Amino acid sequence: MTDREYDLVVSNGTVVTPEHGTFEADVAASGEKIAAVAEPGTLSGETEIDASGKHVLPGAIDPHTHHGIYRGLDADGESESRADLVGGVTTIGNYFRRPGSYEEIMGDYFEQAEENYYHDYFFSLGLLSFEHVEEIPTIVEDLGITSFKWYMNYKYVATEKFGVDCEMRDDFGDAFIQALADVDAPTTLGYHSENVEITSSLGDNPYLDVERDDDAEYRDYQTLVDQFPGYAETQSMVSGASLAKQHDYDDDFYAVHISSGKTADELAALRNAGYRLTGETCTHYLTLTTEECDERMNVNPPVRSKEDQETLWERVADGTISTIGTDHCANLAADKIGDDVPDSLPGFPSTPAMLPLILSEGVNEGRISLERAVEVTSTNTAKAFDLHPKKGTVRVGSDADLAVVDLDETKTITPELLQGAPDYSPYEGTAVTGWPTQTVVRGQLAFDDGDVVGEKGYGTHIDRPL
Amino acid sequence: MTDREYDLVVSNGTVVTPEHGTFEADVAASGEKIAAVAEPGTLSGETEIDASGKHVLPGAIDPHTHHGIYRGLDADGESESRADLVGGVTTIGNYFRRPGSYEEIMGDYFEQAEENYYHDYFFSLGLLSFEHVEEIPTIVEDLGITSFKWYMNYKYVATEKFGVDCEMRDDFGDAFIQALADVDAPTTLGYHSENVEITSSLGDNPYLDVERDDDAEYRDYQTLVDQFPGYAETQSMVSGASLAKQHDYDDDFYAVHISSGKTADELAALRNAGYRLTGETCTHYLTLTTEECDERMNVNPPVRSKEDQETLWERVADGTISTIGTDHCANLAADKIGDDVPDSLPGFPSTPAMLPLILSEGVNEGRISLERAVEVTSTNTAKAFDLHPKKGTVRVGSDADLAVVDLDETKTITPELLQGAPDYSPYEGTAVTGWPTQTVVRGQLAFDDGDVVGEKGYGTHIDRPL
Amino acid sequence: MTDREYDLVVSNGTVVTPEHGTFEADVAASGEKIAAVAEPGTLSGETEIDASGKHVLPGAIDPHTHHGIYRGLDADGESESRADLVGGVTTIGNYFRRPGSYEEIMGDYFEQAEENYYHDYFFSLGLLSFEHVEEIPTIVEDLGITSFKWYMNYKYVATEKFGVDCEMRDDFGDAFIQALADVDAPTTLGYHSENVEITSSLGDNPYLDVERDDDAEYRDYQTLVDQFPGYAETQSMVSGASLAKQHDYDDDFYAVHISSGKTADELAALRNAGYRLTGETCTHYLTLTTEECDERMNVNPPVRSKEDQETLWERVADGTISTIGTDHCANLAADKIGDDVPDSLPGFPSTPAMLPLILSEGVNEGRISLERAVEVTSTNTAKAFDLHPKKGTVRVGSDADLAVVDLDETKTITPELLQGAPDYSPYEGTAVTGWPTQTVVRGQLAFDDGDVVGEKGYGTHIDRPL
Amino acid sequence: MTDREYDLVVSNGTVVTPEHGTFEADVAASGEKIAAVAEPGTLSGETEIDASGKHVLPGAIDPHTHHGIYRGLDADGESESRADLVGGVTTIGNYFRRPGSYEEIMGDYFEQAEENYYHDYFFSLGLLSFEHVEEIPTIVEDLGITSFKWYMNYKYVATEKFGVDCEMRDDFGDAFIQALADVDAPTTLGYHSENVEITSSLGDNPYLDVERDDDAEYRDYQTLVDQFPGYAETQSMVSGASLAKQHDYDDDFYAVHISSGKTADELAALRNAGYRLTGETCTHYLTLTTEECDERMNVNPPVRSKEDQETLWERVADGTISTIGTDHCANLAADKIGDDVPDSLPGFPSTPAMLPLILSEGVNEGRISLERAVEVTSTNTAKAFDLHPKKGTVRVGSDADLAVVDLDETKTITPELLQGAPDYSPYEGTAVTGWPTQTVVRGQLAFDDGDVVGEKGYGTHIDRPL
Ligand SMILES: [Zn+2]
Ligand SMILES: [Zn+2]
Ligand SMILES: [Zn+2]
Ligand SMILES: [Zn+2]
Ligand SMILES: [Zn+2]
Ligand SMILES: [Zn+2]
Ligand SMILES: [Zn+2]
Ligand SMILES: [Zn+2]
Repeated sequence: MTDREYDLVVSNGTVVTPEHGTFEADVAASGEKIAAVAEPGTLSGETEIDASGKHVLPGAIDPHTHHGIYRGLDADGESESRADLVGGVTTIGNYFRRPGSYEEIMGDYFEQAEENYYHDYFFSLGLLSFEHVEEIPTIVEDLGITSFKWYMNYKYVATEKFGVDCEMRDDFGDAFIQALADVDAPTTLGYHSENVEITSSLGDNPYLDVERDDDAEYRDYQTLVDQFPGYAETQSMVSGASLAKQHDYDDDFYAVHISSGKTADELAALRNAGYRLTGETCTHYLTLTTEECDERMNVNPPVRSKEDQETLWERVADGTISTIGTDHCANLAADKIGDDVPDSLPGFPSTPAMLPLILSEGVNEGRISLERAVEVTSTNTAKAFDLHPKKGTVRVGSDADLAVVDLDETKTITPELLQGAPDYSPYEGTAVTGWPTQTVVRGQLAFDDGDVVGEKGYGTHIDRPL
Repeated sequence: MTDREYDLVVSNGTVVTPEHGTFEADVAASGEKIAAVAEPGTLSGETEIDASGKHVLPGAIDPHTHHGIYRGLDADGESESRADLVGGVTTIGNYFRRPGSYEEIMGDYFEQAEENYYHDYFFSLGLLSFEHVEEIPTIVEDLGITSFKWYMNYKYVATEKFGVDCEMRDDFGDAFIQALADVDAPTTLGYHSENVEITSSLGDNPYLDVERDDDAEYRDYQTLVDQFPGYAETQSMVSGASLAKQHDYDDDFYAVHISSGKTADELAALRNAGYRLTGETCTHYLTLTTEECDERMNVNPPVRSKEDQETLWERVADGTISTIGTDHCANLAADKIGDDVPDSLPGFPSTPAMLPLILSEGVNEGRISLERAVEVTSTNTAKAFDLHPKKGTVRVGSDADLAVVDLDETKTITPELLQGAPDYSPYEGTAVTGWPTQTVVRGQLAFDDGDVVGEKGYGTHIDRPL
Repeated sequence: MTDREYDLVVSNGTVVTPEHGTFEADVAASGEKIAAVAEPGTLSGETEIDASGKHVLPGAIDPHTHHGIYRGLDADGESESRADLVGGVTTIGNYFRRPGSYEEIMGDYFEQAEENYYHDYFFSLGLLSFEHVEEIPTIVEDLGITSFKWYMNYKYVATEKFGVDCEMRDDFGDAFIQALADVDAPTTLGYHSENVEITSSLGDNPYLDVERDDDAEYRDYQTLVDQFPGYAETQSMVSGASLAKQHDYDDDFYAVHISSGKTADELAALRNAGYRLTGETCTHYLTLTTEECDERMNVNPPVRSKEDQETLWERVADGTISTIGTDHCANLAADKIGDDVPDSLPGFPSTPAMLPLILSEGVNEGRISLERAVEVTSTNTAKAFDLHPKKGTVRVGSDADLAVVDLDETKTITPELLQGAPDYSPYEGTAVTGWPTQTVVRGQLAFDDGDVVGEKGYGTHIDRPL
Repeated sequence: MTDREYDLVVSNGTVVTPEHGTFEADVAASGEKIAAVAEPGTLSGETEIDASGKHVLPGAIDPHTHHGIYRGLDADGESESRADLVGGVTTIGNYFRRPGSYEEIMGDYFEQAEENYYHDYFFSLGLLSFEHVEEIPTIVEDLGITSFKWYMNYKYVATEKFGVDCEMRDDFGDAFIQALADVDAPTTLGYHSENVEITSSLGDNPYLDVERDDDAEYRDYQTLVDQFPGYAETQSMVSGASLAKQHDYDDDFYAVHISSGKTADELAALRNAGYRLTGETCTHYLTLTTEECDERMNVNPPVRSKEDQETLWERVADGTISTIGTDHCANLAADKIGDDVPDSLPGFPSTPAMLPLILSEGVNEGRISLERAVEVTSTNTAKAFDLHPKKGTVRVGSDADLAVVDLDETKTITPELLQGAPDYSPYEGTAVTGWPTQTVVRGQLAFDDGDVVGEKGYGTHIDRPL
């Protein structure tokens, strides 16, 4: 109908965004950007994707991955970003925490990422010392990184674990927050809510008597739940958010991986009391329960009860929880699985399954609307990490990151299906309805009907502030 | 850059919507609909509007006009809708209240409207009797009208004024609300907040002693304010909303023309207490004060103090007040102006000045953002009257109703400038910065650089539910 | 143990007040006042009441009676105040509403009361016209009456019913409230919450089609509930309280006889939204349900469902509802009972049963504490009507009004037991556990073990402000 | 007027309690208890105190003293309790924190207290280890001590300071709270709100750079304020209260010595969000400002700004802060005063000045009512520590602890006036209006017109639960 040929056109699909609801349109990319949104069937492109009967979403964003944590970033960057395309993910936020100057460290990472990523990425840096805090202005200005993480779970153990001269106590957090509040650019502080003084049993708390007897023959998943009780998460979130509020930084305070229903409820209560913090949960807290978990699902915080899961869904639906991530780690079963649950390595692969699981368990099960699914897996995430409107939306001038999904397609999860490095999946055997059929990264068709067709190294770092 | 020729293209402008903020794009219409939003400078059309350096807004919607009230609808429809184009207005909601069967009455109105309107319109019907209430299902089904009005100011006087066998007391309002709650389609109940038992001094309230002495030589604008005190508006809004809430209809309850700051504050309080009603204010309450008013500005409710005005702006800015209308009446000075203020006719012309005044006093004076201005003059209005997403947004598939505005242009208001029938303006002599340069109605260029170029009778009734 | 002989001593009882909880003490009166509270068993008096094993409460106050409404005040004052002693009531607030100057009218009432009342009383005047409103300052200053009533149920019918030149619309209520706000002394505005435009079916509201067909053979109690739906009460309370709030008078606004659970819930919501009004319910709404009601229980508002009853108890318990009254009317069965329920006279006798029923159904059934029972039947009532600390408490210097109650005594209600003029009771046949054994009025033993021993004419009017 | 002679009678005074407001009465004691409250001028006693023109208050309670901290408990108990009588204090709550078994330790303290105290006392135990936590049931059952303290300021330093094998981290606090929640009796957890990780500069927080340069010649009071910023108190209160709330123990959580206005504001916010904790402030935070402070006023937390002071008064007035204490320490100037402010010993004498300062600065300056002054210095304190109704009220059967005060008497504070061991006062030279003229301890006249006439060793430990 038109003679102009765009570079790529997704035609005849139903576009879904939280801003505009659902509507039929062609979406065209010229180069990396969305160049046009137009009446269905009117645009033509060098590459054409027929989205008839399908939905066109802004590419999903997983704000919480740990590429490079068990293997090198070059390996993970390549395999995992490739796998992500299968799941409609076009951007990830990867966490690093290492001693030493990030100014110096990050060079290698940027290089490895640049060569390997199929999709875009931004980094969030876990600060481990006052030296790190002092680096904040440089990190923002020179590295284009504006999101950070306060690992409450490394309190006390940072020296032993990382060799830093810092115990990561609250004076560190206090300086961290104040330094961020001093930065001119918008920033984000991810916060691992965990009162480690409780969960680590540093003392002798008889109320947290978790298999102290090392003679236990086999420790199951409940052992993890006992060691990391929900209230230690809830209280820590309140404590951290309160410190942020003291420095008027609560609106950039971002509680990662909320696992407990009570934490979500308290988040709602804090919001009503004037706190402006943001909360993230993860796919596994929404789709698994303690009973269903084994060695593969060792993660911190652990997967909790059915009741927690239901509360989390309600809090996703009602707006309390703003984003969904995965805490993805790319380990192999041989390394991962130990003698029992606590003996197994924490973390598991999840990013490629994120969007399908949310579509299947959230949208198709009627727990949230399709628009809300897009909001929590893409739009809100882009806003929370100051990637918006470059990411997270379908708008002329935004990056042409798109996931074409078939809400009716059912597939059973296997490691092979997800195409990542890991040879196991916590979701193995789960039948999931709602899958991407195509994934477009900055204008380039990167996943097409089961095949990754993107280009290794095509992904770029998103320098912030935009 | 492309060979396809759309019917109309607005090129190189900055599109503004509450959903997507501001971004540079071409907007193309094919027939009546938005056919494409594309990179700036890439689309071509039979008609091309160069919006370089300008902003492209969804056409403004004035939900509150009284065409046909002083002159015939054919006269008003023609002259006023033509004038509206000058002010970037592409849709109006016109109120009718008449005795008799609307099923029978509306035929003529539809006809007169169809022949005369330059832009689109929807009707809201003021019900005046139980017979009217009984007509609700038919009105919705057969006439495509889903918005109604409860004129609290006609309580007791409906019989005298309209010859109906109804005093429009709360039993009438109660039946009205319940009948609306029973309708399957989404509906809207506009509510004129006024405790007429107080403002009409039906009794002998010594606390409302308004110029009872008819010997007064000249009664100025303050006389109106004394007769219609703000609290009689505030209390009436609460009373009406409470009745709606009893029937779980508060989310479709729409308080028109809020004039008092305290009413706006109480609206905020009710919202916090769980009421879901919507509030509208009018241009004149935001831009005039009692001291500035004379015979021309006789209107009910009257224009109040500077303090009220400031509170109203704050409540527009903070989200409490959702929409802006005008209460536009097309009367002539000779008819309008009486011996003194109360002796003058109520109502005055305002629609064409609405958007420019909001841009000038709201956006350019820094009281609200440009996005918020669009939201309260178009997007929210479309949502409140169930016109969305056909109206109120810039989206493929929506009606191509657009206002291209130059935020820097200053003009001084005169009746001639506004091009309507009225030979006076309450804003005469006011320098206003921010004016439409082009107005597009359903794909047709209707106002261009000072000249109305639209087509009489092009406008159509918006049948609801969509 | 002491040689001083007080005039009267209640010895060895357990005193109960909301201020001091429960404690063992003798309570002595010297003349009319409490002269001493002392260790149990230490005081002696000319009259001695052994309260061993019993509880000593401040005398109950029924703030809502209609003595003189069906019979003369002389007759009612005598018989009903005598009966009240049986129920531990030592003060009543009686409502009058009559046309004409209260300054002139009240003389007779004061005289009749003075000669007949066994216990103390205060009057609340229902104002019916603007002339009445003008009398407010005189009423307060000359008559010592500071509580008033706005009968929303007489709107429109005041002229017909009372011959006044006033329709009691909101301009009247507006002047009423403003005049009260202007008074220097503390005042109280009782408000009968009823949207009479709804309940009277003045129009033709098809949603309130209550036995319009007068051919109905027999109309049961549900007919009343249909005619006076709860929402017409709820909405009216909100509407009235909102008008009071406009004049900053909401803290003296007192919603009488709340009958609907939703009204109580909305009262809680208004409180949270900053309204400071007070709410009263009545014994019958707490102890009867529609199903249990017949001709005898015709009253406006009517007794509602079990669910309403339960909500009311919860709202009494949680502090939302502050006081309990009865709406007592002293009519005889022959006059009261009509052909069917609506045909029967409204109002029934209740005051003497108030405290026993609250002790039985409230305290003994575990719905409220004994202290809370005292609070809502005496202390709060005294505060709401500005009788405190003269009334409503057990404190040296306060009036020696006491009810000695046996919480374990069970009696079955009969008209004879209650000793009033009425020859029937809505509670006839009900077994009630918790009865006064002695009642002391201003230092005088007035009821003793089944016998009224008080003195006719001993009661005095409580001039306010104190 | 009566022949009975009570042991002691306070006659003709104006009794003040929050429950009953103010009223004229004689108050008689028989033995240790209030035996009668009676009409003024009617009681006679072996000892008679003429309170004409004066007010009779329940004896003040200082819930926060540190007797025995700088000198022995025998010395402090004697001198300080004697001095307290000058200030109308009849009960104190003394904190101990020591390693070792309290079961064993407390014997000596009980003995020393028994021999020396002029007035009553209860103990609150600061727990320092998990062993202490395990002792809780025994402490409650055997020692009659139900109030405890979580010293957040000893986190990390408990081992060094007390030799305990516990760092008093949150696992300790967690076990502490859970153990208290498990106790059957009502308990109280005093909590020193201080994020010691911030105030101790354990790390290298550049945002808390407090005179790190030890070359500073002289460090003034502002140095303390810099080291202990208000936000470290606020955040710690939230953090601690949140942990208590996790175990549904927030209603027994008692934040001691609130010094910062923002902490008080956040306390109000938490209350609105459903937390039920109690807050205490101290006399010095209400009457001093940083500018007025020198070496004598070294205390933790430090005295803050005029703005903080004003907020604290508002929060005392509006009910947010429930109690007032002193943090009294009985040290001598020679020991106390160091080279500069931080070099001086923390803590100073204050109890005897508490009530006079609150009467002078609070009541006579119009900041709070006399009833509220009684509430926060006695009644609420008794309730918070489960001493009520034995203490904190003027009621038959309660302990006859009374302070007769002359609200018009002005005296200038000197150490001699206060009669304690300390030879200095932070309030020296301050003119204070409102002083006790007599103090009665459990029925015994203990202070009379400037002279302590009580009996050493008369005071007894208040075994709880009552
Ligand atoms: Zn984490
Ligand atoms: Zn993580
Ligand atoms: Zn109107
Ligand atoms: Zn209008
Ligand atoms: Zn009534
Ligand atoms: Zn009544
Ligand atoms: Zn402390
Ligand atoms: Zn202390």
